[in-house]
Amino acid sequence: MRRAIELAARGLGATSPNPVVGCVVLDAAGRPVGEGWHRRAGGPHAEVHALAEAGEAARGGTAVVTLEPCNHTGRTGPCADALIAAGLARVVYAVADPTPRAAGGAAALAAAGLDVAGGLLAAEAEAVNAPWLTAVRLGRPHVRWKYAATLDGRVAAADGTSRWITSAESRADVHRLRAGSDAVLVGSGTARADDPHLAVRGVPGAEDRRPLRVVADTEAAAVRPGARVLDGAAPTLLAVAHDAPAERVERLAAHAEVIRLPRAPGGAPGLDVAALLAALHERGVRSVLLEGGPTLAGSFAAAGAIDEVTGYLAPALLGAGPQALAGGGITTVARALRLRVTDVARIGPDLRITAVIPALIPTAPEES
Amino acid sequence: MRRAIELAARGLGATSPNPVVGCVVLDAAGRPVGEGWHRRAGGPHAEVHALAEAGEAARGGTAVVTLEPCNHTGRTGPCADALIAAGLARVVYAVADPTPRAAGGAAALAAAGLDVAGGLLAAEAEAVNAPWLTAVRLGRPHVRWKYAATLDGRVAAADGTSRWITSAESRADVHRLRAGSDAVLVGSGTARADDPHLAVRGVPGAEDRRPLRVVADTEAAAVRPGARVLDGAAPTLLAVAHDAPAERVERLAAHAEVIRLPRAPGGAPGLDVAALLAALHERGVRSVLLEGGPTLAGSFAAAGAIDEVTGYLAPALLGAGPQALAGGGITTVARALRLRVTDVARIGPDLRITAVIPALIPTAPEES
Repeated sequence: MRRAIELAARGLGATSPNPVVGCVVLDAAGRPVGEGWHRRAGGPHAEVHALAEAGEAARGGTAVVTLEPCNHTGRTGPCADALIAAGLARVVYAVADPTPRAAGGAAALAAAGLDVAGGLLAAEAEAVNAPWLTAVRLGRPHVRWKYAATLDGRVAAADGTSRWITSAESRADVHRLRAGSDAVLVGSGTARADDPHLAVRGVPGAEDRRPLRVVADTEAAAVRPGARVLDGAAPTLLAVAHDAPAERVERLAAHAEVIRLPRAPGGAPGLDVAALLAALHERGVRSVLLEGGPTLAGSFAAAGAIDEVTGYLAPALLGAGPQALAGGGITTVARALRLRVTDVARIGPDLRITAVIPALIPTAPEES
Repeated sequence: MRRAIELAARGLGATSPNPVVGCVVLDAAGRPVGEGWHRRAGGPHAEVHALAEAGEAARGGTAVVTLEPCNHTGRTGPCADALIAAGLARVVYAVADPTPRAAGGAAALAAAGLDVAGGLLAAEAEAVNAPWLTAVRLGRPHVRWKYAATLDGRVAAADGTSRWITSAESRADVHRLRAGSDAVLVGSGTARADDPHLAVRGVPGAEDRRPLRVVADTEAAAVRPGARVLDGAAPTLLAVAHDAPAERVERLAAHAEVIRLPRAPGGAPGLDVAALLAALHERGVRSVLLEGGPTLAGSFAAAGAIDEVTGYLAPALLGAGPQALAGGGITTVARALRLRVTDVARIGPDLRITAVIPALIPTAPEES
């Protein structure tokens, strides 16, 4: 199963709106004879790749798969049928499929007389699919907020300069995060200040990754023709307010897809976060890397729409300048948004801290 | 030598104004026959303890000691003489003594015919004595700034609440830092807001540690009779401005030692940091734990008087509230105060990050 999870991870960033899945087929004697992973949406599932490699050796053997095999016909046929047809005796999976449409695979396999067991290494298999599982459970994309700050929490100096707070190594690591996401999102403040490109660069093996670049440009005034985000490196979506001036919207629409969304409720600045996430979900986006500044991050925090945080901390002190997070509606310590640290790593001279909202930490399903 | 460094560390917090020192004596066959460490200022040096334990077995043997043996008579006799008298054949030390008064021990030993070598595990031995070495080299106490903040760098919420941002485990760890320091310092803002006690509590083996409690109470208006810092748990020093109102100063002087110091130069708030540190140095303080709020920390940063930083980061987000560091005179990223991370540890749910100003990272001396 550990090998199957490794295989699954190879698909990260390429399978949306599908999950990542890995599969190892063992022959009747328990020897590995086939491996596969889901490489891209619309392509064959992991089980199909692994069965093809195993061929006749699969007969009487075992399939070890990270997610309960599907039982529906989408762009490919049901994997449960393929496993039965291959003559397997046993299927072991880690995580039950939470999708109503695709679930039922375990039951179908058991009905066909196969020995079926679930829950093996479930926590590790959940972790590799965390964004997709979050998206299925919440009905909106998983949101990872990334920021880069000094030890005293400043994302820029008092004069607005922010290049470069963190190291080249940390900036390269952000490209790895982008490559594993379906969309990269900034707000109008960042678009105006940094003219960011938001594409993936320099990540080995991710040369074909083109996550959707999204700018929440409420007034349609921050992104201008010629902006780097409007080049052909990846698709771009501009989200503007429903009442943004038509002439500005038309000018942008010549260069990228533009959608109109409601403004944030209650007179808060920016767009309605839930509406923005719904629009992205509709487009098949299951994971969003939020690279915005303090204001956009504050809107997402206020909307309860941050699932995971990756902070790059530079060992530097500024003593002045804007903070990583502004707003969010929290005014007293007792109501602070509490997270759980899941990883700490040294990235060059910097620290990378990863933390999740505990309510969203996946729990392993019961053995089936 | 690694064992000698471990022994030296046992003296941390108890030896000022002396360094910590550890010593292992090996007999002529290389077997350890004596151990010692410097336990408290005025008490016997590490070598004397180790030689006493070794007795006659030291003859023809080797002394392994973390700091070059001293060559002067203070409250105790020169260690170089004791080592010669014990009939040792060889002395190996890690770090040369930077004190003009005490140095020359290696030369005296060599002149007496002993085989002498320096520099063994020098970096590790420097690290255990970093505060003392900094104090000797700079002529002022080593300053460790401690703060506790959220991931977004807030030390309190917008309503001023700060209990408790970090966990009970982190707060207990701060007592360990206090126990290893000669003085614990806060400013008037913290004294007024938190009425802190600043004594050491709950640190096993540190029951007798009573670091000097210091409040920089510029206007003599923050600490009032009845304040917790004025109890008998440890000595207390109140530093006030030279022109603080006499009646307030007299009222305080009934409860603690009060010193008058110049105000910060150039109209900056608070006291002159250099004068405060000089006053502490004069009192034998070699290490200061700066537990003050953003303003005092900013004054120290502006004065170039922060040598090491220990930050406790709680995995929480606030989005509003004061920052760990305010001021410091840095307005652009290129002039950020850059540090080097030396340690990262998980303390309960929190992270503890330790970083030093690279200019002050001790370098190993040449082999003598």
